[in-house]
Amino acid sequence: MTNETIAILHPGEMGAAIGARLRSKDLSVVWAGAGRSAVTRARAAAAGLRDAGALCDALVASSVVLSVCPPHAAVALAREVAAADFRGVYIDANAIAPATSHAVASIVEARGASFVDGGIIGPPPHDGSSARLYLSGRDAARLAALLTAGALDAVALDGGIGAASALKAAYAAWNKGATALAAAAHALAVHAGVAEALAEEWQRTQPEAVRRLDVLRRAARKAWRWKGEMEEIAGAHAEAGLPDGFHLAAAELYDRLASFKDSSAPPPLAELTRALDARARRG
Amino acid sequence: MTNETIAILHPGEMGAAIGARLRSKDLSVVWAGAGRSAVTRARAAAAGLRDAGALCDALVASSVVLSVCPPHAAVALAREVAAADFRGVYIDANAIAPATSHAVASIVEARGASFVDGGIIGPPPHDGSSARLYLSGRDAARLAALLTAGALDAVALDGGIGAASALKAAYAAWNKGATALAAAAHALAVHAGVAEALAEEWQRTQPEAVRRLDVLRRAARKAWRWKGEMEEIAGAHAEAGLPDGFHLAAAELYDRLASFKDSSAPPPLAELTRALDARARRG
Repeated sequence: MTNETIAILHPGEMGAAIGARLRSKDLSVVWAGAGRSAVTRARAAAAGLRDAGALCDALVASSVVLSVCPPHAAVALAREVAAADFRGVYIDANAIAPATSHAVASIVEARGASFVDGGIIGPPPHDGSSARLYLSGRDAARLAALLTAGALDAVALDGGIGAASALKAAYAAWNKGATALAAAAHALAVHAGVAEALAEEWQRTQPEAVRRLDVLRRAARKAWRWKGEMEEIAGAHAEAGLPDGFHLAAAELYDRLASFKDSSAPPPLAELTRALDARARRG
Repeated sequence: MTNETIAILHPGEMGAAIGARLRSKDLSVVWAGAGRSAVTRARAAAAGLRDAGALCDALVASSVVLSVCPPHAAVALAREVAAADFRGVYIDANAIAPATSHAVASIVEARGASFVDGGIIGPPPHDGSSARLYLSGRDAARLAALLTAGALDAVALDGGIGAASALKAAYAAWNKGATALAAAAHALAVHAGVAEALAEEWQRTQPEAVRRLDVLRRAARKAWRWKGEMEEIAGAHAEAGLPDGFHLAAAELYDRLASFKDSSAPPPLAELTRALDARARRG
């Protein structure tokens, strides 16, 4: 098993951290640097990943592909990999609905790969911060043993394809949903001129809501990426016979924060709140 | 001011507790017992409220009406009071949207009453549990002084009619919205067979979500009443240029719990979760 080579597509913050953990147990890890930014290149190099150049070269060298990308890009990436006739194990570790995971499985298996569903919970795994990579599907137990590496804990789940995606969806449904919910309630109070009274009530009995406003400020630069994830989670709820409105609303709110994309410092709460208000945005 | 008589319409758990606090400072408090249940009668008597009989008799005796009823009944109650030509102060303390509060104001003011907006935050005020009665509108400061009574803290807000309702809406938007959100995420995990793994992740990093499942179990018997409140909150969000989907989804979920109305013991979580799943309900 230690002769396996893993392709990470693509090494963003999460993918690079996972790659570094796999390198720490002497696995070969490659990526496809052709056409990628200098920032990504530097990140991948720092993580010890080998740049195989073009996607097809990375795939030829690899027995396992780990797809780690924004949710809205997951299906397109699977198509690219399938188009290159990849026949190893394809793990989709993205924040997608179980139905999307089944769609990705069909795409890559049609061209000879075997599919494993995945879901990552936790921050990028470093010293001092650990993440779980949940895996489900036929080969999940073997891959969990292969990929567990220090702060990265790979865990096989029963339930077949869709189980790992559903777990990630349920976790983020609460976590990112509650953050959007708190931000909307705060914006409602600001709109009515009662934000100070709400803050007092929240400090008295709802410290979690206060905390989440701060979480959102600090994450504002990446909130735009959560739109796609919220839409996937809405889909997962609908599939399960549950209302999808929570996460369609959260998707809309996070989309309104796109102007903070890659901003260097957390915005003041007042600025964030103005961005959430559709009427202030038009005004 | 101490000669004022306050009519509480109607003494449910919250109204009776407020009435008892007002009685403790020697205010006269009446209610309209005609046609009400034995349970309500016993509750009102225990709180020291005088039964004036018919609604019109309660109104004739009173300078202030405090409306404390389920949100869906607030407008109809205002119409009944207006129809009796009540010309004192009408406080709507219900969980309604600011726009609904303005509608209630129009109804009672058209027949000569003066209107004060209200919103209650906290559990029924007893020894050991306090509540705030927020008030806004022209007469709010005077009424706050009149109604503050021990565990009941009446607080005047700036901002005119709608401010108190908006504060209550924003508070409940998070509080009851987050409870519905956690229940839906848990139901999603149950549907996919990954509830145990989600529980482990939640215990590790999201204790608030775990706590809210227990809150919902214990409140299941009254969750049916929250449907109307969630719809009012959805309306408040829409008025403020914010997505209304969170609370329309919460309204739908709480409506699915109507079968637990007035149940004597908290249902097991598995039973609650089955009730939330539209497909299990049909099956």
